[in-house]
Amino acid sequence: MQPEALTKLIAQLRKLPAVGLKTATRYAYAIIDMDEEEVRDFLEAIEEAKSTIHFCSECGNYTDREICARCETADKSIICVVQEPRDVQAFEKLGTYNGLYHVLHGALDFQKGIGAEQIRIRELITRLDGVKEVIIATNPDVSGEMTATYIAQLLKPLGVKVTRLAHGIPMGSEIEYADEMTLSRALNDRKEL
Amino acid sequence: MQPEALTKLIAQLRKLPAVGLKTATRYAYAIIDMDEEEVRDFLEAIEEAKSTIHFCSECGNYTDREICARCETADKSIICVVQEPRDVQAFEKLGTYNGLYHVLHGALDFQKGIGAEQIRIRELITRLDGVKEVIIATNPDVSGEMTATYIAQLLKPLGVKVTRLAHGIPMGSEIEYADEMTLSRALNDRKEL
Repeated sequence: MQPEALTKLIAQLRKLPAVGLKTATRYAYAIIDMDEEEVRDFLEAIEEAKSTIHFCSECGNYTDREICARCETADKSIICVVQEPRDVQAFEKLGTYNGLYHVLHGALDFQKGIGAEQIRIRELITRLDGVKEVIIATNPDVSGEMTATYIAQLLKPLGVKVTRLAHGIPMGSEIEYADEMTLSRALNDRKEL
Repeated sequence: MQPEALTKLIAQLRKLPAVGLKTATRYAYAIIDMDEEEVRDFLEAIEEAKSTIHFCSECGNYTDREICARCETADKSIICVVQEPRDVQAFEKLGTYNGLYHVLHGALDFQKGIGAEQIRIRELITRLDGVKEVIIATNPDVSGEMTATYIAQLLKPLGVKVTRLAHGIPMGSEIEYADEMTLSRALNDRKEL
């Protein structure tokens, strides 16, 4: 009994990450309830973002310029290597890191056919001029660990210091609830006080 | 350091119900990552829904016709009165009710200046021809209860049977966790077994 245009809109909204039928329906109603001007602003924001935002030719993060503001103003002696643009956001929120970023756009996953050629590893090698340290901040899962090891092996012979984010028990959590992998890692990487 | 178009898109996405900065950012990235065709479909679905969907002139639910399919095919001896179109969805999911609906688009709330003229009560009165029962399914809160009482007082003199959804302990929940209002209502409305 639902109008077809509503069904279609709900189907489109379900393409957003982690949006199920119920949430999509709620969003659809909200959009239909917006006045004309609000909907126009909403549509324009999508169109504008889509037409102006692309990847920085240096770091691979989103930008509306050829080379992003960060790549121009950063401390160029250090590069933080991440899998996705949203990981850059996580570091930016800290506000304490002022070096370069390098977005791989993925991680090695041979089962999925993602090798070194499929992610931005070659581009990383071309950026090492003047770089003293490469911090590898890929995810602490099989794919991210493999990518970290691969990059480290590639860079060490070039005389660059390669570091990896520390892993361990998250701050504010309880040891009782830590998963085995994390606890075992925290034990191995224990530090003297 | 974030491109302005991305900031704008995130601001627009935050207008969706219960979407905060984190979720909006996630949606924005997903939209930017869509290919051209996907974004076009997405935009078209919003435009089409916005241009074709309006309120049924009879029941006030969303439709793309003058009078909605439900109003044409329903059992016209019974009307279920709800506050919002999404409440109709909740009944439709049951699949057991085949009467008419009447969407009030709100509930009485004198503090917010919402009186009988601001919601579709007058329209309800004009639909009573041939109706034997009016089920009032407004929300079980102060505003919804007041609206239910108001409508009941208005309709009873007209010789229409007026009923209200039963309130009580939700199925599958525990009495221990029921709030006082609900428990007291369940006690008052207890049924003989």
